[in-house]
Amino acid sequence: MTIQTPDADVRAQAADRLAALATPPGALGRLGDIAVWVAACQGEVPPRPLDNVRLVIFAGDHGVAQHGVSAFPSAITGAMVRTFLGGRAGVSALAKAHGVQVRVLDLGVDEEFADLDPKTREALTSHKVRRGSGAIHLEDALTAAETSAALEAGAAVAREEIASGAQLLISGDMGIGNTTPAAAMVAAGLGLPASEVTGRGTGIGDDALRTKTNVITAALARAGDRTDDPIQTLAALGSADLAATTGYLLEAARSGTPVLLDGLMSVACALTADRIEPGAASWYAAGHRSTEPAQSMALEKLGLSPLLDLDLRLGEGSGAVAAVPVVRSAVALLRDVALLSELGGPGDPA
Amino acid sequence: MTIQTPDADVRAQAADRLAALATPPGALGRLGDIAVWVAACQGEVPPRPLDNVRLVIFAGDHGVAQHGVSAFPSAITGAMVRTFLGGRAGVSALAKAHGVQVRVLDLGVDEEFADLDPKTREALTSHKVRRGSGAIHLEDALTAAETSAALEAGAAVAREEIASGAQLLISGDMGIGNTTPAAAMVAAGLGLPASEVTGRGTGIGDDALRTKTNVITAALARAGDRTDDPIQTLAALGSADLAATTGYLLEAARSGTPVLLDGLMSVACALTADRIEPGAASWYAAGHRSTEPAQSMALEKLGLSPLLDLDLRLGEGSGAVAAVPVVRSAVALLRDVALLSELGGPGDPA
Repeated sequence: MTIQTPDADVRAQAADRLAALATPPGALGRLGDIAVWVAACQGEVPPRPLDNVRLVIFAGDHGVAQHGVSAFPSAITGAMVRTFLGGRAGVSALAKAHGVQVRVLDLGVDEEFADLDPKTREALTSHKVRRGSGAIHLEDALTAAETSAALEAGAAVAREEIASGAQLLISGDMGIGNTTPAAAMVAAGLGLPASEVTGRGTGIGDDALRTKTNVITAALARAGDRTDDPIQTLAALGSADLAATTGYLLEAARSGTPVLLDGLMSVACALTADRIEPGAASWYAAGHRSTEPAQSMALEKLGLSPLLDLDLRLGEGSGAVAAVPVVRSAVALLRDVALLSELGGPGDPA
Repeated sequence: MTIQTPDADVRAQAADRLAALATPPGALGRLGDIAVWVAACQGEVPPRPLDNVRLVIFAGDHGVAQHGVSAFPSAITGAMVRTFLGGRAGVSALAKAHGVQVRVLDLGVDEEFADLDPKTREALTSHKVRRGSGAIHLEDALTAAETSAALEAGAAVAREEIASGAQLLISGDMGIGNTTPAAAMVAAGLGLPASEVTGRGTGIGDDALRTKTNVITAALARAGDRTDDPIQTLAALGSADLAATTGYLLEAARSGTPVLLDGLMSVACALTADRIEPGAASWYAAGHRSTEPAQSMALEKLGLSPLLDLDLRLGEGSGAVAAVPVVRSAVALLRDVALLSELGGPGDPA
């Protein structure tokens, strides 16, 4: 299947409208660019207001978390899933403030959530692939069958969200240790060594940073030339949650639904989606600059530049949710500002 | 009168709450800092939601616009005022999208607005100081009496907005040629030559940039050591709209109401307000990075760093209005995120 890019004719019409607004040429800066992109994605000028924005948080544990790559223990993953369910996490607060709907899914958390009521537990775990993904420096993250299942789970979730009216999709992440497989996926996708892609995650010190770099180096060596293939990259170096995120982003692109990317996990999966189907990234915009170096490298490869740079390193999709009002600003400008041709009187700049 | 800074005890309480949230240390980045500042300004932890945000656009013409410093003729000022009144300008679209109330005031536009209905005209012009301000390379912008009147008009407007419930104030600008007096005010405040502060405004070419630099050089030479005094700086180098903006920002600080600054005009006036009453800037945050070099220089002097950098060069208060949701994100995080102490179970990171 070949991905269709956003409509070039509509993009040109949107750029014409932008140029015809009663504002100095170029005065809308990046908001003008984003408005034109939204219009092209929607196939409509002016673009429709983004009233239905949806975040899906893909949660999972990572075997590497047992090997000194994170500042936190794996048990935090499940605790944070419960915090999302209770609406009390960072991204919950942001989503409530900006009218973004949140759904959290357990793809690979290393626990059973037996304490949850059955309905909540079923909604949370219905797409679960396995308990924890493999420690990538020692073993594959996923089997081939698990990789396919996770990709398809993510795609199914995207279809559900789009069927519910999503106009803009966001992916969020939760999983202690997840910057390690995500950085490895970026290294694989860009052909870079571990030393260039490894960052401090939620805040590790120098010793843990060395350990993390060594883990990624070993993982890349173990994967060998399987990194030439993006799906084998997910199996060798990814995880259930990251493979599902990749499937979700890929399905968004296939169905022509724009996506606002978040931090490293989101962008590593976007890079992988674009490797699977080149052109997928034409449906993506970048919400927030991560402090993780691999995110910036992957964004540069995808030709994307983040809208915000607020030093957030919360994960969860929070950077993208914080950027939703910026995209709404862009849409409002292209919709609501007067055209030069509509203004009359002595001050008509035409 | 001495300005009180935001409450240090409340600031400390807010910082304690930030540190106690169930998020990794420092993970909220700049949003954490802004949330603490809002709480300190409000004197309340957690801070209240910012439901009542108000923009006042101070409009005026500038004699220098007749001398080749702008890409547009002065008649645009009045045309844009009408566009604000009709709710069709760039900032109108942004304000509508983000629930910000907009008021436009003619402080020194070089026309009578005789075509407007009497009630609208009265509301627009009731604080008018004069028609056009002086061409600052040739004459003072304002007399001493006009300077006082404009400062007091701005203060009165701030009091009115605060009495109407404003929790956060924004100043916007409209006036062809206004980056010339604003840059001159920054040069005066920072002791810099014209060559360092002069920018391209709405998009002038190299020839006009040389002309504009020469105008500012001549204005600074003409003002001489009167630039040592901030109020005399307004008279010599400012304008009715910029003096009123300064009075508005000063009154906000005096009354303890936080302000989100916009581009060069807003920041030049904030710098001047802080020169008049040192400490005023403790009530200000910076919304958007301007492409005008003088804005960055003045912000650095005030110790402020903008929340957004979207290459906007629209003026009107648009950069600050676009940044309002960022401040709301900050408040939502400090209000709504769970405290570590509230979370139980096996994942409690405490």
